[in-house]
Amino acid sequence: MNHCFVIRQIGVLLLALASVLAATAAFAFVLGLRDPLESRTPAAFAAAAACGAFGGLLAFLPFRRAAPQIERREAMLLVALTWIVGAALASLPYYFWALWCPSEIPARALLRSPVNCYFEAVSGLTTVGATIISGLDEMPRSILLWRALTQWIGGLGIIVLFVAILPSLGAATKRLFVAETGTTRSGVRPEVRQTARLLWIIYSCLTLAQIIALRIAGMTWFDATCHAFASLATGGFSTRDASAAAFGSPGIEWIIILFMILGGANFGLYCQLVRSRFRAVLADTELRLYLGSIAVVTAIIAAVIVHTSITSTAGQTASATTFEAIRAAAFQTATIQTTTGFATSDFNQWPLIAKSLLVLLMFIGGCSGSTAGGIKVIRVWIVLRAICGEIERAFRPNVVRPVRVAGSIIDDTAMRAAMSYFIAVILLWIVGTGVLLLLEPAIDLATAGTAVVACFSTVGPGLGRVGAVETYAWLSEPSKLMLCGVMLLGRLEIFALLVLFSIRFWRD
Amino acid sequence: MNHCFVIRQIGVLLLALASVLAATAAFAFVLGLRDPLESRTPAAFAAAAACGAFGGLLAFLPFRRAAPQIERREAMLLVALTWIVGAALASLPYYFWALWCPSEIPARALLRSPVNCYFEAVSGLTTVGATIISGLDEMPRSILLWRALTQWIGGLGIIVLFVAILPSLGAATKRLFVAETGTTRSGVRPEVRQTARLLWIIYSCLTLAQIIALRIAGMTWFDATCHAFASLATGGFSTRDASAAAFGSPGIEWIIILFMILGGANFGLYCQLVRSRFRAVLADTELRLYLGSIAVVTAIIAAVIVHTSITSTAGQTASATTFEAIRAAAFQTATIQTTTGFATSDFNQWPLIAKSLLVLLMFIGGCSGSTAGGIKVIRVWIVLRAICGEIERAFRPNVVRPVRVAGSIIDDTAMRAAMSYFIAVILLWIVGTGVLLLLEPAIDLATAGTAVVACFSTVGPGLGRVGAVETYAWLSEPSKLMLCGVMLLGRLEIFALLVLFSIRFWRD
Repeated sequence: MNHCFVIRQIGVLLLALASVLAATAAFAFVLGLRDPLESRTPAAFAAAAACGAFGGLLAFLPFRRAAPQIERREAMLLVALTWIVGAALASLPYYFWALWCPSEIPARALLRSPVNCYFEAVSGLTTVGATIISGLDEMPRSILLWRALTQWIGGLGIIVLFVAILPSLGAATKRLFVAETGTTRSGVRPEVRQTARLLWIIYSCLTLAQIIALRIAGMTWFDATCHAFASLATGGFSTRDASAAAFGSPGIEWIIILFMILGGANFGLYCQLVRSRFRAVLADTELRLYLGSIAVVTAIIAAVIVHTSITSTAGQTASATTFEAIRAAAFQTATIQTTTGFATSDFNQWPLIAKSLLVLLMFIGGCSGSTAGGIKVIRVWIVLRAICGEIERAFRPNVVRPVRVAGSIIDDTAMRAAMSYFIAVILLWIVGTGVLLLLEPAIDLATAGTAVVACFSTVGPGLGRVGAVETYAWLSEPSKLMLCGVMLLGRLEIFALLVLFSIRFWRD
Repeated sequence: MNHCFVIRQIGVLLLALASVLAATAAFAFVLGLRDPLESRTPAAFAAAAACGAFGGLLAFLPFRRAAPQIERREAMLLVALTWIVGAALASLPYYFWALWCPSEIPARALLRSPVNCYFEAVSGLTTVGATIISGLDEMPRSILLWRALTQWIGGLGIIVLFVAILPSLGAATKRLFVAETGTTRSGVRPEVRQTARLLWIIYSCLTLAQIIALRIAGMTWFDATCHAFASLATGGFSTRDASAAAFGSPGIEWIIILFMILGGANFGLYCQLVRSRFRAVLADTELRLYLGSIAVVTAIIAAVIVHTSITSTAGQTASATTFEAIRAAAFQTATIQTTTGFATSDFNQWPLIAKSLLVLLMFIGGCSGSTAGGIKVIRVWIVLRAICGEIERAFRPNVVRPVRVAGSIIDDTAMRAAMSYFIAVILLWIVGTGVLLLLEPAIDLATAGTAVVACFSTVGPGLGRVGAVETYAWLSEPSKLMLCGVMLLGRLEIFALLVLFSIRFWRD
């Protein structure tokens, strides 16, 4: 295995993150001129940037001339290390700030634990949005921006990875652009670079559009930027404890709903739009199923909660009118299916049938090639089609009828991959919940089960004691580390991380 | 499709069941000479037998000369109808008895509802063991015998079906004796007849052995017979409300544990034993995994409940000594993994981790070719092996490494069948639980979820309000009919029943 190039690239990653940290340090310094809360944040970000630069150079310089020949195994190792090491660096500003901050605010005590800082950083980069911080409203704005920024970077990273570089790792069907690994013996393929650049432009333009829309709807530039970063990345970190409900504006909520849905759709389709292939986009099976699912579940939940008393995450309880019920249902359905994890309503108190539907959506998740997590709509569809085929096979064992999705045949390998992934998610969920039950004697089943699926599917909030108005801070450190592992497994679609535990992977 | 032969065979089935009913009527008549409780039971059984004979002749006589040419579709239709129509006839004695019984005992009011009677009969013939009857101790003995007898007949039926007649329908691997459908154009194949006869002898001998063992351990002949019928069939109907705990004898409990485990093992292996192929039996992967799973889970649960206060189903609460903890853990583990459903301890009150393990075992179930339900150990194993293979495929997409179970290669079709079945069970469970949540506004998630898996896997008792000391009587009639469907789907391994809803199945 070409270890040298892998280490070199990790060095490049650390240097890139260090430069973002340095920019955030500058931003914190400017804020600090007027805001006493920011007194120590420039130092925290600068120190983190220095650590990143030092580590980056240490990894890069010795191997700067390493041959850029990587194959599938190197690519997978690089992907896994990117998220694991990147999160370590991204956690440093939290830790340094908690160490040096003079005032005793709640978040400070929480972030004094390195495990909490790492949890927050992993949750950010994997776009999960599970948080251990309460008291967001009293936090320095530079730290809040960094939280949102980690999600934005993580979201962009996962799209580039699954659409441009390693599509076969992420998508069940091979309808995307480029072939395996995206690299040749002479380096990264030109078409991969092109696609990656296009994705980066689309992602930035959509973010900018959302910032402007939120500003017009009444948010400050700062809140608009943070929420745009967290919406399109389907992350879910907010700048307020009450999440999106804190702004009390239906307009803002509908804008967030729209951009969450855009973030949960396949970014490969946006590339098609740019290339004027409108018909291909309209005919996309996964997109239709995804939008249909959001619409149907919104309608059912709205019907269930209309005229009942619902509590917003800001703490106001009121009987929901028809419009409010539709908005609350649409927001929660979109935030869960796109695996964002913002909240406007404490859905933990909703009727059982609404909660069950939301938990089901947590498993399904968004589209392949999006920033969303979960099993993915297309895989669920392939699995359902395969099961229907199996019914016919029961009485006609010799008839082979290929499964088609949007006209193209799903071959046996893709079908087996989709089924394996579906089962692997279920097994991982069972094991994760079991471990959590063992580690936390006082936990209930709903909390344990939804904590694992919410972390795996990159949703964030679950039910019970990890619900929309709760945090993950009360869990023990071993549980938090376990959930970090679950978040990484979910983000890298299980197999990309599990390979590291295979002996054959390391053999030449 | 050869409908004539299907109808003829249903006629044969009804006539056979009618003769068993007539024998039970004679037994009730003899009991009635001394037992006032039996005053109306001979009439109830005789009336049911008459209905069966009438229906049977009506179906048989017009088609008695139908050609015995059946293919796979006819066989599947026959299988589905056997259980659906058989349960209807088996429910009649309950209904007639409730109609005519002069004394007002609790069970009588419950059995006045035809839906309750059908639920009890389906639960019997599918060897589920979910009951709607409370007050078993005050019921006529002939009715209790009939309940146990339906399980014994249902257990024998499923073994003959999945081992001798349609092995490919039930087992994921093709290591059993005979080829597809077991019939040729000239009738049932001779080797199928031979295997079926051998199975019937083995099943009867094992039952006789258990009756004698239970009698020696202190049960009456009547209780011993009923419990032997329900143990080997992994059914779980008892003659007492307190189930096996009512006899308060560790010896009896260990005997039942042993025979439940025997019932949950592949009956094809007993045929091998009879043919002196000991080595094949010892090397059987599924048997080893099955026994290992029971041993490991027993050890874990015993460690969890030792020295805690446990409540027996007879209502006594006491701190469990090491021996009592092992016995209680072994009994519950065996009763759940073999999908029998007897109970000695109210495991609903056990720690969450013990309950979670038991629910997991409900999904897994016993061995293929046994009277047990569930996904089956061998399928779970194949699925796990396939997932491990998929990890390697992630970094070596072109390497094909066949999955082996006990030396023989599992081909793609068998692997896909196992994975499809696994996923179908999960989906069915989700849909079933969802429907139950809709039908029963007051139900909790643990009750709904475990009711569906307990019915599907032919276990019987679940958790919460369908726990070991509860019944299914409180559910609404639509819920009970839905659960009847779940029991039939679970017993016939989903696809054998779902085919009836496929349009292609009915086309020629």
